[in-house]
Amino acid sequence: MEAFEKNIRRVEPYVPGEQPRQKVVKLNTNENPYPPAPGVERALRELDTADFRLYPDPACSVLVDAIADFYKVGKDQVFVGVGSDDVLSLCFLTFFNSDKPVFFPDITYSFYKVWAELYRIPYECKKVDEDFRIVKEDYYGANGGVIFPNPNAPTAIYENLEFVEDILRHNRDVIVIVDEAYIDYAGPSAIELVDQYDNLIVTQTFSKSRSMAGMRIGYAIASPKLIRYLNDVKYSFNSYTLNRASLVCGAESVKDREYFEKTVAEIVGTRERTKERLAKMGFSFTDSSANFLFVTHPEYDAGDMFRALKEAGIYVRWWDSDRIRQYMRITVGTEEEMETLFAFLEQYVSKEN
Amino acid sequence: MEAFEKNIRRVEPYVPGEQPRQKVVKLNTNENPYPPAPGVERALRELDTADFRLYPDPACSVLVDAIADFYKVGKDQVFVGVGSDDVLSLCFLTFFNSDKPVFFPDITYSFYKVWAELYRIPYECKKVDEDFRIVKEDYYGANGGVIFPNPNAPTAIYENLEFVEDILRHNRDVIVIVDEAYIDYAGPSAIELVDQYDNLIVTQTFSKSRSMAGMRIGYAIASPKLIRYLNDVKYSFNSYTLNRASLVCGAESVKDREYFEKTVAEIVGTRERTKERLAKMGFSFTDSSANFLFVTHPEYDAGDMFRALKEAGIYVRWWDSDRIRQYMRITVGTEEEMETLFAFLEQYVSKEN
Repeated sequence: MEAFEKNIRRVEPYVPGEQPRQKVVKLNTNENPYPPAPGVERALRELDTADFRLYPDPACSVLVDAIADFYKVGKDQVFVGVGSDDVLSLCFLTFFNSDKPVFFPDITYSFYKVWAELYRIPYECKKVDEDFRIVKEDYYGANGGVIFPNPNAPTAIYENLEFVEDILRHNRDVIVIVDEAYIDYAGPSAIELVDQYDNLIVTQTFSKSRSMAGMRIGYAIASPKLIRYLNDVKYSFNSYTLNRASLVCGAESVKDREYFEKTVAEIVGTRERTKERLAKMGFSFTDSSANFLFVTHPEYDAGDMFRALKEAGIYVRWWDSDRIRQYMRITVGTEEEMETLFAFLEQYVSKEN
Repeated sequence: MEAFEKNIRRVEPYVPGEQPRQKVVKLNTNENPYPPAPGVERALRELDTADFRLYPDPACSVLVDAIADFYKVGKDQVFVGVGSDDVLSLCFLTFFNSDKPVFFPDITYSFYKVWAELYRIPYECKKVDEDFRIVKEDYYGANGGVIFPNPNAPTAIYENLEFVEDILRHNRDVIVIVDEAYIDYAGPSAIELVDQYDNLIVTQTFSKSRSMAGMRIGYAIASPKLIRYLNDVKYSFNSYTLNRASLVCGAESVKDREYFEKTVAEIVGTRERTKERLAKMGFSFTDSSANFLFVTHPEYDAGDMFRALKEAGIYVRWWDSDRIRQYMRITVGTEEEMETLFAFLEQYVSKEN
């Protein structure tokens, strides 16, 4: 090791779901199988590249306004960033500065732990129960903030607003972040609690239900006060974030409510049919309210199955981690993609074990 | 103040140069007056928006490869981010983890201090001399890393590679970052020292000479080892950064060397003519090697002049800060824009003081 390496940060790099270049059935990163709203293409074509010479609007107004309109909240209640990872990371930096630990589930989005370590924020993981449900009483104790996804990932389990509100009621003196990346496939959003709880932040993303993972857009909705804090931190260290293409494409996408609702319904329909098919094959799974399923089979090893699927050009996600080693996460794709998956699995589970 | 506000990070928000919506002569944020290379428009038109549903390539290969080709360095020597602010911020997080202070000039890019404070990195500002030159001997002492822009901003002063190498020779045990946002308007880049000094990182941006501030692209060139460290940290906490539009537009822009050299030459030509015109009016200034000038007038207050210019629809930059309060920073625009500026200033300096 060279002397200059002594003070370099050592991390365990996250391994993102593979982005294969050849043609595969890609059910591994919870992307949307449908293209974005038609207006997105038009918006992109109309962009004047001569304007690329100019910095983008640091306030991201065109996109903030569209999101505020869609959710019927104030423009001062919306913050946007380069994907919800960017928004969440900034939330950690802005809101979690207590000496007390931030609470989040043990089985959850893996980046919470990473951001906490990165920013040297104390944290405590609260075990989800045997059915992978978050135990709300675990979040009653003194803490430096709370964050959980709803639906949770990779468990796909949605908890209703009564549950969310119970956690909020027990945490009036800290910031509570509800990460709703998959909410559009589930039930009511905690956005409707924002006016009542000014310590609540709801984050969402364009990467799933809006089919724009490739454009990196995420947002937070909260009280004007919390949004102001977020903007202050953002402006203090990186003023220009979303580029000109993301701003206009994102805004166009939000304007098309009909297309949004139609594609969400398609995916929910496919998901429900997938549950039936998998159940018939002997799989068991959590009751998914997301665009993916979290499945296990009593007779077949999940790691083996994952590798066999990959071999056959069907990519799903599997983690060699405690408690979830016998589970695979399968994204809901098109009907056709799911049929390819079913055909493979039906063969697989009919073999001698 | 609510209880939940107790642990919220308090910052002094950075005030970015104004992005006026009405038609003005905009010489305040060092943007390029010319559009990006013609290939950028083609690349944008050819983008298939259906692919927006998929995450972008986390390795950003198409852009990394184009940059590596342009600078004749290895593909494993290039790191890209969402503007050079993103790249630099990540460099601070990755490389500056010593108990000793990081050194940078007192008059320099204002974000260095912000990132250091944000990540709780000790730092020490070294005074530039009376002519605003960096004093290289100040960087010989024990430190936790060194960063300086070359040319420096807002002074516009370029130091040659002998100077850069001297700082490198005295700092073999820490990481040295040379922030070359404006290098294409100056002289040789420290990129040619990268193979010799494996503790050197050179950062550059697409926002100036490549006319793509609106698309948020920056990059670092260094030894494969340092690039690996940067990628490890990036993948550990935010895997998908540059969106699909930035990747292809950026790559196209780099491929057009001829257009790049032509527009850089135009701006350098205008800058030199601007020096002559301003000198005739009695202004004095540093010997700019950037796409902006750092100017003062012995008889007129810079703040007054800044406000008068703004009143007339000519935006330049001025800071109410120690040591530079009598200076304005003026971006080099088109010949036509500069003529508007000259006309105003000639009037201004002919008036009774």
